[in-house]
Amino acid sequence: MEYSSKHEMSVTTGPLPASNKIHITPSAAPNLKVPFREINTLDTEQPTVRVYDTSGPYTDETITIDLGKGLPRHRLDWYDARQVEEYEGRAITPMDNGGATGKRLAKAFPVQHRPLKGTGNKPLTQYQAAKAGILTEEMIYVAERENLGRQTMVENAEAIRADGEGFGANIPLHVTPEFVRSEIAAGRAIIPANINHPELEPMIIGRNFLVKINANIGNSAVTSSVAEEVDKMVWAIRWGADTIMDLSTGRNIHNTRDWIIRNSPVPVGTVPMYQALEKVGGVAEDLTWEIFRDTLIEQAEQGVDYFTIHAGVRLGYIHLTVDRVTGIVSRGGSIMAKWCLHHHQESFLYEHFEEICDICAQYDISFSLGDGFRPGCIADANDRAQFAELETLGELTQVAWAKGCQVMIEGPGHVPMHKIKINMAKQLAECGEAPFYTLGPLTTDIAPGYDHITSGIGAAMIGWYGCAMLCYVTPKEHLGLPNRDDVKVGVITYKIAAHAADLAKGHPAAQLRDDALSKARFDFRWQDQFNLSLDPETAMDYHDQTLPKEGHKIAHFCSMCGPKFCSMKISREVFDYASKLNDKEQGMAKMSHKFREGGNALYVDKREVDTNRS
Amino acid sequence: MEYSSKHEMSVTTGPLPASNKIHITPSAAPNLKVPFREINTLDTEQPTVRVYDTSGPYTDETITIDLGKGLPRHRLDWYDARQVEEYEGRAITPMDNGGATGKRLAKAFPVQHRPLKGTGNKPLTQYQAAKAGILTEEMIYVAERENLGRQTMVENAEAIRADGEGFGANIPLHVTPEFVRSEIAAGRAIIPANINHPELEPMIIGRNFLVKINANIGNSAVTSSVAEEVDKMVWAIRWGADTIMDLSTGRNIHNTRDWIIRNSPVPVGTVPMYQALEKVGGVAEDLTWEIFRDTLIEQAEQGVDYFTIHAGVRLGYIHLTVDRVTGIVSRGGSIMAKWCLHHHQESFLYEHFEEICDICAQYDISFSLGDGFRPGCIADANDRAQFAELETLGELTQVAWAKGCQVMIEGPGHVPMHKIKINMAKQLAECGEAPFYTLGPLTTDIAPGYDHITSGIGAAMIGWYGCAMLCYVTPKEHLGLPNRDDVKVGVITYKIAAHAADLAKGHPAAQLRDDALSKARFDFRWQDQFNLSLDPETAMDYHDQTLPKEGHKIAHFCSMCGPKFCSMKISREVFDYASKLNDKEQGMAKMSHKFREGGNALYVDKREVDTNRS
Repeated sequence: MEYSSKHEMSVTTGPLPASNKIHITPSAAPNLKVPFREINTLDTEQPTVRVYDTSGPYTDETITIDLGKGLPRHRLDWYDARQVEEYEGRAITPMDNGGATGKRLAKAFPVQHRPLKGTGNKPLTQYQAAKAGILTEEMIYVAERENLGRQTMVENAEAIRADGEGFGANIPLHVTPEFVRSEIAAGRAIIPANINHPELEPMIIGRNFLVKINANIGNSAVTSSVAEEVDKMVWAIRWGADTIMDLSTGRNIHNTRDWIIRNSPVPVGTVPMYQALEKVGGVAEDLTWEIFRDTLIEQAEQGVDYFTIHAGVRLGYIHLTVDRVTGIVSRGGSIMAKWCLHHHQESFLYEHFEEICDICAQYDISFSLGDGFRPGCIADANDRAQFAELETLGELTQVAWAKGCQVMIEGPGHVPMHKIKINMAKQLAECGEAPFYTLGPLTTDIAPGYDHITSGIGAAMIGWYGCAMLCYVTPKEHLGLPNRDDVKVGVITYKIAAHAADLAKGHPAAQLRDDALSKARFDFRWQDQFNLSLDPETAMDYHDQTLPKEGHKIAHFCSMCGPKFCSMKISREVFDYASKLNDKEQGMAKMSHKFREGGNALYVDKREVDTNRS
Repeated sequence: MEYSSKHEMSVTTGPLPASNKIHITPSAAPNLKVPFREINTLDTEQPTVRVYDTSGPYTDETITIDLGKGLPRHRLDWYDARQVEEYEGRAITPMDNGGATGKRLAKAFPVQHRPLKGTGNKPLTQYQAAKAGILTEEMIYVAERENLGRQTMVENAEAIRADGEGFGANIPLHVTPEFVRSEIAAGRAIIPANINHPELEPMIIGRNFLVKINANIGNSAVTSSVAEEVDKMVWAIRWGADTIMDLSTGRNIHNTRDWIIRNSPVPVGTVPMYQALEKVGGVAEDLTWEIFRDTLIEQAEQGVDYFTIHAGVRLGYIHLTVDRVTGIVSRGGSIMAKWCLHHHQESFLYEHFEEICDICAQYDISFSLGDGFRPGCIADANDRAQFAELETLGELTQVAWAKGCQVMIEGPGHVPMHKIKINMAKQLAECGEAPFYTLGPLTTDIAPGYDHITSGIGAAMIGWYGCAMLCYVTPKEHLGLPNRDDVKVGVITYKIAAHAADLAKGHPAAQLRDDALSKARFDFRWQDQFNLSLDPETAMDYHDQTLPKEGHKIAHFCSMCGPKFCSMKISREVFDYASKLNDKEQGMAKMSHKFREGGNALYVDKREVDTNRS
């Protein structure tokens, strides 16, 4: 369904195929309503399959979307105990939109809310609350969400977890609010949730929780518009983006972000440097701490949930990048490097880091400490520039924690497979187990146009090793600004990577969806197979390209093998056959038993095959 | 360029963008011409980049393609020392084409060659020759091919290899014919090369060589035609398929295969069971050893290079699959399981395995011992059925070697990431290091429509761990027969996986292409970046979607970030700036030195950053 507003914007709404939005209220907090998606199937034993739902109210048929009004501000009720105050915010200036005027100025978001900030008298950030032993609504909410609303553990949870390989992760069998609190207090997880983003449905990022993914959106000076970017945001969360980053550059940055945040149920991250640079006409050396600080306040008041701050790009490291094949490929990193060299002065982000923390603490904005020296090609992976910066990010993590802030750490980039694990291990060691948030990494440079795949490989692996959030890469990476189709392919690819990681880590509930889909496959419930997949539309479309008729949806074959060669059809026949053979009651199992009893070794004993011998 | 023949077939011919076909003659064999592709760039230091070329004469502008005549039969000259004899082959029967008549019968390939077989007096197979210390033309050919025609090692080969992680692989710094021979003699590598496929450009499969990929093609009873499948074969090798498997079912199997083999410069594999089953009307229980044997001879005489034989599907293992979520998902496996249960008799493939070896040895057909019990979903991975069969494949490997045959082993399937490594380790241990050849594996079941990606992740990993050849999976997997577009996406995805594996293993020359492309990227040589990529057309198309003008091909930015935010542009400026700063001669390096000399620790010493500390 396409929802079109009077603001010349349209977004896709309505539930996914065969799906309902449901809400569950955690026993610990009767005022919360945690959303899930339930997929309906024809399976008689398990007719619905519940899945994590990032799509927000857009897939809720009971809610009327009004993009010009924004989403319901449900979190405002949660702040009662936190001592927040409303105040007269910073005035919006023409510079905030790059000086755009007239037709070039994108329409401002119609509703302006007065901003909130903490008074400093009570714990405000999730980190402060966690340290103080307080269970916030956000913590209770994400615990329920991580459990998919289950009251109890999944069956065999312990055995499933033991069968996985978590590389030191400590995945709980069932997530309690107290576990969430303890992970946040330890700095191992964050809930990015600016108090000025009350439209948010909270989520948690940490290696002992489900692996999350981020989708980058945002226009550039060359292409796109506010309407396109709002559409991309809704589209990205429809397919599973857990957070989005608005990386807009060019004009209209302020207004674009307002439209996005007011309509976003997922955390919104930004790189404030991009807007600060626009404010000085794109001349890096003209940047000042004052302009940067002003930009932080502007974005804090709008409700940005996490800031990428490249405070690890220090003057003394820049020369380490000179011999690289691709130099500095982080936009923020290259801007700061230029500033440092020009002024021959230490980075103002590094020098003013404590002040930045003070701002973030007032709004509960999380840090995403940027990797300005991430490698931009295989040749530059794991080099001294990259790891020197990582060590500084570890130092800054301690500063941020001391100031009560939540922190995650950004990681690469381009890394061949055999050098991925050391990135994870070094990040954990240097940064006190703060969550890691990587871009891919891409495992080869030779496939522009397919970098969602080159990076999906690396993302799955680093997610397995312990990375908490994976920033997607779209097929357009290195080539141009992704459009709506690219966003979807990027999101689905990264949902695959994150889910493959959850499976490998031994997350107790991860395999339920795989099993439901595989069972549907073996039962030839084609429609269920499509509906249970990450992208029902594409799955059905591909199937229907060769077998479009309705009758084919119940056929016991597809066009791959045709009716005579469908292994699963034959396999069914084998089982039916076996169950009739010799003994109508117990089939092959009894037959096998009989043979073994008679001293006949025709049937191999299951126990004789060692599945672990290698 | 589209080549259209009078036979109502057309295939894509002509070189890839900015590329030339070249041939190099190995010093050890002046009669050989080994093909490579050279990509021309604007790089002044390294204007051409040479890459491995699977595309055969179709990309050679000097050769006129005639699909009705087939490719040049250049290997015939190589058999002089091997004592092969021409003989009157088995007569083609209507049954070979599923009884198709009239309009339903696909046109026979216009030229019929009398088949060759070994007399048994001299070593015929590559394995026999290798054991006898003979360097065959094929061995010399593949050595040259693996080296990309280099006379000497690449620079720093030893350091590059030491920097990789090969999990026990023994990758040579430079491949010699003698190394090839020794690997084949040890059973660690094969050159699939039926003497009746003299059109072949030989290639090698083994874990101490470049990782290879296979593309499955072939029609089904439901869809496609001979013309489409020939087109898919040429299309698949254009993008990098090292071997193809013709998995045709339905009618016209014989004639389809004839057209494919006569026009294929890469090894062609089949699953003879598929055709045998057609010969008994699709009724598994009607299969007999005699019909199967006759099918082997038929295909041997046509020139099939490797046979998938599911001889490990033994009666005594079938009951191990009963509790599976998706039963038996291998077509060949399910057919044999049905046959075994119906007759309550051991598999005729297992019982007659020595006879099968005798046939294969006469033509030098390699074995691809099939994994009929491979898991079809995450839940069934690494179970007792799968590993029981693998142990039997190890036993059969020894039998085949004793008979002088070349052997590789097929592997899964669907396997979560943490269970992949044990597959590789167990295969090496059970099968005496015979090459492993896996289908993916898929690392999750939840993404039909994207199974090239779910499996590309697993393929890259198992390739790194030591798998020698990766069988592609297309986006249509589980949904329908792949078309031309799907074949291309599958091949490119698997080239990515194979190349990522080569990089991670520390193959000395693998990174050359990454470096060339990344250098082009940093230099804003857009056209070079496209041309050096695995798929120049898609890369350029994606770029041009937002910046189509010719001038944009030399612009120092793309639409992703626009001119002000291009990190690489800024990074260039940083370097230019640094080189002018303070010291016009030596720039930042000297400046850094000066600062350190003065006791000023402003610039970090490279050596102080430990890139291995974790």
